[in-house]
Parts: sequence; structure tokens; C-alpha cells
Amino acid sequence: METAVEPHAPLADDELRRLNAYWRAANYLTVGQIYLMANPLLREPLAPAQIKPRLLGHWGTSPGLNLVYAHLNRTIVRRDLQMMFITGPGHGGPAIVANTWLEGTYTERYPSVSRDEEGMERLFRQFSFPGGIPSHVASEVPGSIHEGGELGYSLMHAYGAAFDNPELIVACVIGDGEAETGPLAGSWLSNVFLNPARDGAVLPVLHLNGYKIGNPTVLDRIPQEDLLSILRGYGYQPYVVAGDEPDRVHQELAGTLDRALDEIAAIQRRARGTGVVERPRWPMIVLRTPKGWTGPREVDGRPVEGTFRAHQVPLSGVRDNPEHLAQLERWLRGYRPEELFDATGSPVAEIAGLVPRGDRRMSANPNTNGGQVLRDLTLPDFRDYAVAVPEPGGTTAGATTATGRWLRDVIVANPDRFRLFGPDEVASNKLDAVFEATDRVWLGAQRAGDDHLGPDGRVMEVLSEHLCQGWLEGYLLTGRHGVFTSYEAFIHIVDSMVNQHAKWLKTTRGIPWRRPLASLNYLLSSHVWRQDHNGFSHQDPGFIDHVVNKKVEVVRVYLPPDANTLLTTMDHCLRSRHYINVVVAGKQPSPNWLSMDEAILHARRGLGIWPWASTDQGAEPDVVLACAGDVPTLETLAAADLLRRHLPELRVRVVNVIDLMRLQSEAAHPHGLPDTQFDTIFTRDKPVIFAYHGYPALIHRLTYRRANHDNLHVRGYQEEGTTTTPFDMVMLNQLDRFHLVVDVIDRVPGLGARAAHLRQAMVDARQECREYTRRYGEDAPRVAEWRWVGTRS
Amino acid sequence: METAVEPHAPLADDELRRLNAYWRAANYLTVGQIYLMANPLLREPLAPAQIKPRLLGHWGTSPGLNLVYAHLNRTIVRRDLQMMFITGPGHGGPAIVANTWLEGTYTERYPSVSRDEEGMERLFRQFSFPGGIPSHVASEVPGSIHEGGELGYSLMHAYGAAFDNPELIVACVIGDGEAETGPLAGSWLSNVFLNPARDGAVLPVLHLNGYKIGNPTVLDRIPQEDLLSILRGYGYQPYVVAGDEPDRVHQELAGTLDRALDEIAAIQRRARGTGVVERPRWPMIVLRTPKGWTGPREVDGRPVEGTFRAHQVPLSGVRDNPEHLAQLERWLRGYRPEELFDATGSPVAEIAGLVPRGDRRMSANPNTNGGQVLRDLTLPDFRDYAVAVPEPGGTTAGATTATGRWLRDVIVANPDRFRLFGPDEVASNKLDAVFEATDRVWLGAQRAGDDHLGPDGRVMEVLSEHLCQGWLEGYLLTGRHGVFTSYEAFIHIVDSMVNQHAKWLKTTRGIPWRRPLASLNYLLSSHVWRQDHNGFSHQDPGFIDHVVNKKVEVVRVYLPPDANTLLTTMDHCLRSRHYINVVVAGKQPSPNWLSMDEAILHARRGLGIWPWASTDQGAEPDVVLACAGDVPTLETLAAADLLRRHLPELRVRVVNVIDLMRLQSEAAHPHGLPDTQFDTIFTRDKPVIFAYHGYPALIHRLTYRRANHDNLHVRGYQEEGTTTTPFDMVMLNQLDRFHLVVDVIDRVPGLGARAAHLRQAMVDARQECREYTRRYGEDAPRVAEWRWVGTRS
Repeated sequence: METAVEPHAPLADDELRRLNAYWRAANYLTVGQIYLMANPLLREPLAPAQIKPRLLGHWGTSPGLNLVYAHLNRTIVRRDLQMMFITGPGHGGPAIVANTWLEGTYTERYPSVSRDEEGMERLFRQFSFPGGIPSHVASEVPGSIHEGGELGYSLMHAYGAAFDNPELIVACVIGDGEAETGPLAGSWLSNVFLNPARDGAVLPVLHLNGYKIGNPTVLDRIPQEDLLSILRGYGYQPYVVAGDEPDRVHQELAGTLDRALDEIAAIQRRARGTGVVERPRWPMIVLRTPKGWTGPREVDGRPVEGTFRAHQVPLSGVRDNPEHLAQLERWLRGYRPEELFDATGSPVAEIAGLVPRGDRRMSANPNTNGGQVLRDLTLPDFRDYAVAVPEPGGTTAGATTATGRWLRDVIVANPDRFRLFGPDEVASNKLDAVFEATDRVWLGAQRAGDDHLGPDGRVMEVLSEHLCQGWLEGYLLTGRHGVFTSYEAFIHIVDSMVNQHAKWLKTTRGIPWRRPLASLNYLLSSHVWRQDHNGFSHQDPGFIDHVVNKKVEVVRVYLPPDANTLLTTMDHCLRSRHYINVVVAGKQPSPNWLSMDEAILHARRGLGIWPWASTDQGAEPDVVLACAGDVPTLETLAAADLLRRHLPELRVRVVNVIDLMRLQSEAAHPHGLPDTQFDTIFTRDKPVIFAYHGYPALIHRLTYRRANHDNLHVRGYQEEGTTTTPFDMVMLNQLDRFHLVVDVIDRVPGLGARAAHLRQAMVDARQECREYTRRYGEDAPRVAEWRWVGTRS
Repeated sequence: METAVEPHAPLADDELRRLNAYWRAANYLTVGQIYLMANPLLREPLAPAQIKPRLLGHWGTSPGLNLVYAHLNRTIVRRDLQMMFITGPGHGGPAIVANTWLEGTYTERYPSVSRDEEGMERLFRQFSFPGGIPSHVASEVPGSIHEGGELGYSLMHAYGAAFDNPELIVACVIGDGEAETGPLAGSWLSNVFLNPARDGAVLPVLHLNGYKIGNPTVLDRIPQEDLLSILRGYGYQPYVVAGDEPDRVHQELAGTLDRALDEIAAIQRRARGTGVVERPRWPMIVLRTPKGWTGPREVDGRPVEGTFRAHQVPLSGVRDNPEHLAQLERWLRGYRPEELFDATGSPVAEIAGLVPRGDRRMSANPNTNGGQVLRDLTLPDFRDYAVAVPEPGGTTAGATTATGRWLRDVIVANPDRFRLFGPDEVASNKLDAVFEATDRVWLGAQRAGDDHLGPDGRVMEVLSEHLCQGWLEGYLLTGRHGVFTSYEAFIHIVDSMVNQHAKWLKTTRGIPWRRPLASLNYLLSSHVWRQDHNGFSHQDPGFIDHVVNKKVEVVRVYLPPDANTLLTTMDHCLRSRHYINVVVAGKQPSPNWLSMDEAILHARRGLGIWPWASTDQGAEPDVVLACAGDVPTLETLAAADLLRRHLPELRVRVVNVIDLMRLQSEAAHPHGLPDTQFDTIFTRDKPVIFAYHGYPALIHRLTYRRANHDNLHVRGYQEEGTTTTPFDMVMLNQLDRFHLVVDVIDRVPGLGARAAHLRQAMVDARQECREYTRRYGEDAPRVAEWRWVGTRS
């Protein structure tokens, strides 16, 4: 029966003793980090001044993490495994730091934190200390790809790391609190997308210690048979290890890990030997040990070990309360540090000898420093995928369609290091050319009528933005490349995940040994203006605003207006490093404005005047029509055309913005346009009517320091919409060509009677379109007439 | 065995025939809505002009929804149940609209859509048509509380509706795609929080039709035994109904629903009769029917029914392709409309007779129009919970602590209509006074050492922001009240859910029969500046920015600076209707500035000059120090004090902002301050140093139309931080008192040598604090000296 223990005791007495000594050492170092700033080896009685003034950290989860880490090391050494460790309860920072110090990796990365008494004091002092290191398994920690401050994403990161890493085993400790989150609950079935032949393995360890901050955990308090039923249903073979007697738990865990790793090996042999790739039943472990195990049983008469009170700092009054101080000293001495560290403070040989060598140490696994193993993509020349544009607006294409063809060949050229992720929207977003070359990865059952499913697919589709994001993050963090394509509105689902990844990118820029990663690339389509089968619920262009709040060093936003600009933009993004690139582009057929050569130049500049659409003849214009985004560009060009034909004396300048960050000042963003250039393009005092894809406030925000910002009038999404025609959508939000013309007339002084006449015609045209659409259910034919009609002779 | 069918055929022939007729009618009306704009009863052969020019909608899920709806109606009539219907696959809008029309509710709400031929034509034409109704089960649909555009939240909404609604049964159809999302996967265990004695029941119907947009669904393609194992593990008793022969499926579904409802009744009898409240095994249904069932089998030689191609519009070329047109006509006539509707176009009596009466109709259930059943809260007088403030800064309190006491008594006074929701952070956010009066609701196992758990608790804590949000939304949408308290950083987890709720609030403002709901209230603590055990990962004040993008009519943001202002703010929020109120407040002890009377006045004004902290004597100041948020207020007052003492001749005005929306212009937001008042307070031309809680850009965004915005200099969170002291955090982000003084000196012209001297002292003080903190791990004692030291004599 799967919940039973191995009958034998796999650890010989001496091995058990040494393993337990390692665990005691890790626990000692954990407690030391939380409490001590001096006297690390307790060479003298503890004194209040040796205690940190602010006690900050999380003890509760740490002994369990240390236990699992120690036992995984044993299996790595015995089996010569490539393994990495993901700490779901990332607040157990001191535990993981302790292990990396015992392994020597910490000292290799940070030589001043030497493996001796002086280094141990530094190690202790720096933890959660001003100027020191954070309390979580942050990017500073060798071997970490997962900080875990926000809970929910450990298992998806683990799977992401395992894809296309056939020799890797990703051990993933999931805290019982984290297991309550939706994203984690949705992660278990990632095994439907894991190919045992070409991917690595994930070994989930669900650590039930019973409590969160103040509450029990749900999975700890449902019947164990129900818990196992869930996990079995998700396709795992769960093994339970439970107890609070260390020796017994050591034996059980060692035996269970041996069994699990045997099964993983057998699964992989079967899949790789026979070529028959099926979804196996992967082993996993449920570990039940007390929260804050080996810590104080009681404090001030209240139970602590095994309760929620062990979550953070069990003894909180150590500096001022002599009883707490004495209890801390007893706690620390209970680990018998004198047996664990030699006279210099180094781990004794029998402990140091337990850790794997070199890159086999989980903290030194090269995959955990993804930039180190990153190989450039082989990119087919995007120019070969260009659409022909004999003249602006002369041809029509779906922007994503052309890029889909290019992505198809990116996939072909990089079969081992690039994947496309999407929540069941790759085809809907018109990237379906990729299926000419590959499948959707799928290890579940198949039926007649299924479309391009297979175990070797390079497209990962699951109806969970969380999983797409988490898998991709794990994939990028271990040195590979990818693109996430989603409906624009629903990418907000991963807002908080983006926050965490942006923070990772920001902090790792300051860590010399961390090498740059491939960028996290979003291709958002079915955007606010064109998601025709759906209505208001599918309209939200605010992800851009969310991303722009992140550190400017890591954030890029692109709004290519047509097919060729999208191609060159995507090529740029896939070559870039360590950014979050947000690209928003349409999927519906729409006019192409720029030839490939023009597109490359325009994208490189990021924004520019489109002289062929302007009537300012290179002189100072009367008004600037600016635009960003495909639909706003279409409306702006149509408005420019209306003005050109009906007010030919008006000098109109059309400016298109593809790189939104160019709008910011040089000081605010590395892409920021210098003020002089900005003023040259946008003028210092002429009205600027800016048609923007998203919420108008962002344009004001980006430009508020510019000289001409008082004259900036932005049209964008006003949170108005429903299921209606595309043109009705822009009318509902006053972004339509007619309204833009009205805006111009209202803002350029002294235009006279002809302009007033045109203004009324525009108002009438809106009304006419409105009524026609409501009557006939489609856009008035005249909308197509009132369009950009090609270059002037 | 639970997957087996009831052995008998519960439906007599006539009942089966009638039920099937109802189903055919609903399916007919569904197809009609997707395709037709005329000839609704097919009185003449279909002509292209009768087909909508744009075919938009989702057929695939609809026949399954219609089937479940029909069968639930049968049980409602037989058992006189109070039931409501939540449509997870909310894109099945036409199906639910069809049912509400058959029930007569649609016509009651929208009399022009009469239950006759003319009304049927309107019904068809309006669907997904400009000027008509959206394609989803939007707020326009009677009986809907769940639009379902974004998938994942149906089951949590269902549980939210069931809490404190003992007579209600919430039937919730979960589409198989939706079941893949994390939030849905995390929802199953909501039953650990449902009390069978005082809450209603949720009946989940997992509808497996096999496909999403382009992919199979994961749950459809794992072994059925695994699926059932998952559901059993989650505490349900799943019953499978599967098939594609209507009569057989009708019999199975009727029998299974009878059994499930018997079990629900038995569970409730047991809990309510014996008083022994345990977590039962609730029944649920797994329904396997073909996607697009009864639709075209093949189109253009490719299979459609039962495949992903049935997801949206199976026949897409009807206007131009005569074969498609003919196929559509065969499809529609296959339902034999002449048997379903009488000569006037009304449903025939044997169909109309099947629907429940009056409020028993799911589309007329008063709970689904929450404002209609909403009862005001009984609110204890918040003044009674005031902290004493003999003089500004004279006492200290944790702002949330005082509010916790008030919330305790709100809970006591409203035992049937108010709950407090939080992701295991109620105590951490210092609201633990509530546990003097109530428990955390918990139906799982309990152990010694647990803290305030019980089946009757009014506090809902689960480590899932999604669940907290979804439950609360369901609770509010059915006419109750609540507060969601969370760490500020992680509330981004529910960004996209907030979007959907904001959209609901916006659209329902325009629907006369929808009554206003209680507001969705957030109390965010452990905010960016004070979450001491954690570091950078816990720092993100951007939720405010996210919310501000939503429609101004529904959004309110408050930053009370101390305990009494928080009390009056929360009282205001709990009395308000139909808003999203975001309140950010600290939990750490900090100075109280305003007595309760002053707090009430200040909160009512939303912002104002604090004369006791100013040195402008009511005259025009040299500089304005503005602040919003508790920590920025503290730093601003300390800066004002430094200036008062060291540059006494400088006229400093201190302005505190509690209602952020006051900063916007009158035209932009209903709370916007008129320009003249704004100019009076902030001046038209003096420097304004604005210390803001969150990302500085928001203040610029809100004020960019104000006369003085060029002189506005905002300090806020710059995305810099780690685990450090509170004062070090503000220094890292240049929001500290010393930096604010430097800002003043740098911006007020002509201050002379004394100011230059002070400036250098401030720079030195920062350096000194920095070094002290890095050395000793706590803030320099001088930080406390350089503080606001009470009113001047």
C-alpha cells in the first residue's frame, strides 16, 4: 500500500547519525540567522547584546526544508543526479541559505561569508538585517529560481524548469498553505504536459506541517484518504512520510525517496527506451512533520512547536526577557554545535562530506542561473516573412498571421530551447501557422477530431494564464526562451506574477554572478478593440499600465501598428535579454502601412513622423495627430485623410508611436526621447491629438514633463463597450476618425467656416454610422469610404 | 456504485416528452439568437437577408446549459425549491437568455421583448447586435450574478451566494475549460467553509463536453476514475451522467438530480435537526454530453458536433453560402418549432407549464438581484471606538487595531449579513479583536492549539485571495455586506477579478431593475512601508493604480492617516453602495493626529489643510507639503517640524489627503475638488512637495489638469526595498523627512545660507541614519528626535 513505509531501514546507523548531524547543523544555522549577530558558536553564554534588535524571519517551515534538503543531497550523491530545489515556502530563506553555506556555494558566491566562525557570524548577522540579505529565498540565494514571497507558483516553476531538461530532476517543496491557492491547485495537472522522454522530472513534496500564519491548512485537515485521493486523481503516486521522531522520519524519508527516484528512473527508461511516450503515474511525497520542529515546545506557557505560533519567531522577547534568552540558548545548544562545527567554525568533515560535489550541488546547478546556460536562439530572418506593401494602406494582412509563420520557423530552428505558451488562444490569435510545424504538447488521451496534439509539441496550451506564465517563467529562469500569447484583457490574471518576475529581474541586475535571462515576451492580441465574439468583459488594456509601474530597467512596451512592424518588433524582443516585453497587436485583417525596410527603421526609432500621411511638408504643423496601436493608427490616418481632403490648407503632422517608452523623458527611461527631439516632433506649442490604444491617462503620465503636455489631448479606451461592430467600439470611446477630426477643429484656432462645416459633417457622420449599425448590424459602407486612401500624388 | 445510473426511468413518457420539448425550444431560441434577425418562426424559407451580417456567439456550450436548466426547473417545481443558476461558461449567453424568455422573466424585465412572434424577433435580433445585448450572461440577463467572460470564478461565486442563505440551492455549471483554471481548481474545497445548518447548498455540475476553443480539456482526457478520485478527494459524491441519446440522458439526469437533491435535503435535515454540524459529502454531477449537441454534425466535410469546431458559430458563411443557409434551416427546423410555439409565437402550454412560478423561477430569484434583498447594516457608532488624541501626535495606536474592535461589534450586530474575508491575515493585520466575538469558519478537523475555529464563524480565512474575493463577490451580489482585508502587495492577485466586478457595477448602474449592492470594501494593510518580516516581494502599492483605471462612478480610494480617520472611513464605506472602496491603512503603532471630531470633518472633506502643522498662518505659503498615507504623513509632519524649528520664517502649509479622488478635477470624478478650491489649498504657483503612499505617477496623473501641476514634486514608492527597518525603507525611496526638507530647500527660491546649512544637515542626517542602521540593525535614536513634537504654543 502506497502510504506504508518501506519495511526495512535503509539508513545504516552511521549514515543515519551523519544525516541527522547535517540536519542539526542546518537547523542550528537557521536559528542562528534569525537571532544572532555575534557569538555564533556559543563559545560564551548568550548575552542580550548578541541578539538582533529586530527579530524577523520564519522558523516554522525551516526544519522541514532542511530535512528534505539533507535527504535529497543523499540521493544526489548516491545516484549522481542533476537536481534542483524549489522552495514553495520561500519565507524559509534562512534554511536554504544554511544549506548553501554548508555546501560551500554560498561562500563561493560571497567570499566574505566564509565557512568559518567569522563567516558564520556574517551569515547570521546579514540575514533580515539592514544592508544584509532578504528574509526569503530571494535571487541572492545560490540555486534559487523562486523567491516564493507570494505563494502559489512553486510547482509551475518546477515544471517549467523540467521542460526540455531530460537529465534534470526538480524537487519542489510545496507548503501546505501554498497548496490552498488556486494557482497551485491548478498546477498538479501540469503532468499532462510533461513528456518523460524529452523532459526532466518533477518530484513534488507536499509539506504538511498543519498551519499557516494563524490558521490550520485545509489540506492538513481533510481526511488523509481524501488528500491522497486528490493527488492520485491528479495522476501521482503519493507516498506519505509522517512523524515527529527524527530517527524514524529519517528512515522513512530515505526509503521513500529511494523508491520515488527508482520510479522516476524506471519511467524515464521506459519512455526513452521504447519510444512509447505515455503519461505515467509520477511519484510524489506527502511529508507530515510538526511546524517549527525541534524548536521551543512552549513559550510563556503556550504551545509553540507544532502550532501556528511557530510560524515566524517563536521567542520574540529575547533581548529583554531573560527567560526567553535562556530558552533560546537551550534551543541552540540542543543542536550540540560543538559536534557540528570544528574549532574554526567550519562544518566537521562528516557533515561537509555529505554534500554533493561541484555542479551536482543543488545550489550550484547551472540551470538555476539560467543566463549561464542560455544559448541564443537561431532566428530565421524575419524579413523573409514580410508582407508586401507597395504603398501605405495598399495591402491588408492580419498582423499576427505573418508573425505566426515566422514563429513556426523559430520553433523549427530551436527544437530544444523555445516554446510558445497560450491559454487556448494560439489559433484564436491567428498564430496557427505554427501548427504546420508542431503540435500542442499533450500527454492526455486523444480522440478523433483533435487538432495537432502530441507529446513532442512545442506549443503549450492550457486554459490557465497562471500556468502559462508560471511554466514560461520556470523555462526562462533555467535558460531558455519563449513567448506568451494571450487575450489582452485576461493577462491581468497574472498581474501579481509579473510583479514578482519583474522584481526578480530587477534584483538580479545587481548580482554579478547572475547572468541575464531571455526576456519574458508577451504577444497580446484579441485586444480591447477587436475581440468580436465577446463583449465588455473582454475589454481591458490596463496590463500596460500595470507593467509600466515596474522598474524602468526591465520594462518595454511596443504597439506595432501593422504586420511588418510586428515582425521586426518580435525579432527584437526574442533577441533581447532580461526585460519584460509587452507587445500588443491585432489579429484581424487590417491595412499594412510600412514596407519591411520602413518598418525596421520605424521600429528602431520607436516613434516617428509619417511624412506620407502628413501635410506639414516638413514645416511646423498646425496640429499633430499622434497614434499608438493598430486601431488608433487606422483611425488617425483616416482622420488625416479627411483633413487633407476637406481642409487642405491645414498643416497636419502624423506621428506614430511604436515604443511607448520613447514618450518618457530621457531621465525617466533608458528609451526616453531627449526633450529636444520630442519637441521637434511633437512641437512645443501646437495641439497634439493623441489616439492611444489603452487608457488615456498613461500617455499623460508618460509625457507630463514634456514642454507641450498642456496641449496634449488623448483619446483612448474609456471603459465603454459591448458586443458590437469594431467601428462602433471606437465610436463608443470617441476614438473614431470623425471624433478625431472634431478634436482637431476644436483645438486649432482660426479655422473658419469651412472647418465649422466639416465639423458638423463629422458629427452627422457619427450619427449616421451609429444609426446604420443599429439598424443593419454592421458598419455603414461609408466608414470604408472615409478611410486612408493611399499616398497623395 | 456512484457512477451508475438510477436503475429506473424516473420520467414518465409524457414528462420526458415535455421536458425534451422544452429543451428543443431552448435550443431553437439559442440558435435563433445567434443567426436570425427576421423570420423567427421560419414561417417562410430562410433567406440570406434574414441572417445577421455578423455571426457572433457561442453555440458549443449552449445545449448542455439548456439541458441542465430544464431539468433544474423540473426539480424546483416538484420540490418547491429556492434555486439560482450560475453559468460558469458565461459565453453561453443565448442559452440562458432563451430560458429566461421561456420563463417569462425576460419579458417582465424588458416588456418590448414580448413572448410572441414580434418579441421573439426582437429577442433574436438584439443578441450580439449593435445596440442590443452582449453575448455573455451579463448583468442584463435576469437571474445572472455571474457574467463569466473571464473563466474561473463560478464555483466561488456559488459558495458566496450560499453563505447565510439556508434555504437557497445554488446550481453551478462549471465548463470543462474553466475547470482547468487555478481559481476554479482552488474552489472545490470551499465546502470546508460551508455550514450545512446555516448556509445553503451548492450543487456543482461539471459539464465535460470535451473541448475548449481549439483544444481538448484536461479533465475530459484524464481517466474518468482519476477525475472522480479528485472530486471525491475534494469531499464530493460525484455522479456521472453521460451520453448523446437525448431520451437516455434525460432519464439519467432526472434520476441523478433527484438523488442529489435528496442527499442535500438529508444533509441539511441532519445538520439542522441534530445541531451536530459536520462537513458532509455533498453531491455533485459530472455531465458528459457532446459539444454543440444537436447542432450540425459536419460542415464542409469536417466534423463539428462533438468537436472544438462547435465552440462558436458552426456555420459561418450562411449569408453567402447557400449550402450553409440550407443546413442552418434544416438545423432549426429539426427542433420542430411548430410544435413548440403557438400561432402567436408564444411557447405552447405544455412548455410554458413546465417553468416554476413567480420568484421560484431561477431568473426571478430575488437573491440574484442582490440590491433588492439588501438590508442596511446595523452599525455600532464608530465614535465609541475612537482613540484619545489630546493633541496631534500625542498618543499612539495601530490604526487597524481600533477598527478591529469596531468590526467585532459590526459582526455581532449583523450575524446574518456581514462577513470578514482574508487570506490568513486578519490577525496579522491586527484586526484580531474580532475573535473576541466570533471564530474563523471551519468545518475541517480541529486540533488542540487551533485558534478560534468553528462552524459558525463570521471570519472567512483561506490562503487564497481568489477565494476571498470570489466568495465576497458572491455574497455581495446576493445582497449582503463584507470587508476583504489583505496584504497590500498581494491584492494584485485578484486584479482581473476586480475588473470584472467593476464592469458589473458599471453596467448595472444603467439597468433600472438592478438595485444597488453593498460596496466591495478592501482594507489593505501590511502595506508597502510596513510588512516587517518580509522584504521586496511584499512591496507593491499598485493596486490603487489598477483600480483607478476603472470607471470613476464605481471607484473610491482612501488613505486614512491614523486610527480615527480609519474608523470614520470604514463606517462610510460600509454605508456606501455600489462602489469599490479601497482603503489602505497601517497596522503598526503610529501617532494619532486627529481627534474623532476632527477626523470626521477631515474625512468628510476628503483633504484639507492641517493648520496646527502649518506655519503659513492662513496666508499664502512659500511651500505646500502634501501627504497621503500614514507613513508619508508621518514623514511630512516630521519634515514640517524640522522646517518650523530650523527655518521658522518659511511659511509652510501642510495638506493631508485622505480621499485620493479629490485630487482629480470635478469633471473627471464625482469626488473631484473644484479647481478654485484646489488652487486655494495647493496654490497656483508655489512648490508642492507631495509625499504619497504609492507610485508617484498616480499623483501626477490625477492632478495633471490642475493649474499648479508643473510645481508638483511627488515622492513615493520607487520600487526600492528589501528586509530592513521602516525608516530605512522610506530612505531607500527618498520619502523620508530629511529628503522632504531637502526637496523644500531645493525648490523654494531665495532661502539663503541658513537653508543651505540645514540642507547639508539633512544630507548628513540621512547618512548618519543609514550607517547607524547598517551597524546596529535598528533605526538611529535621532530618527525619533527628528519627529513631529506636538503643537506649537
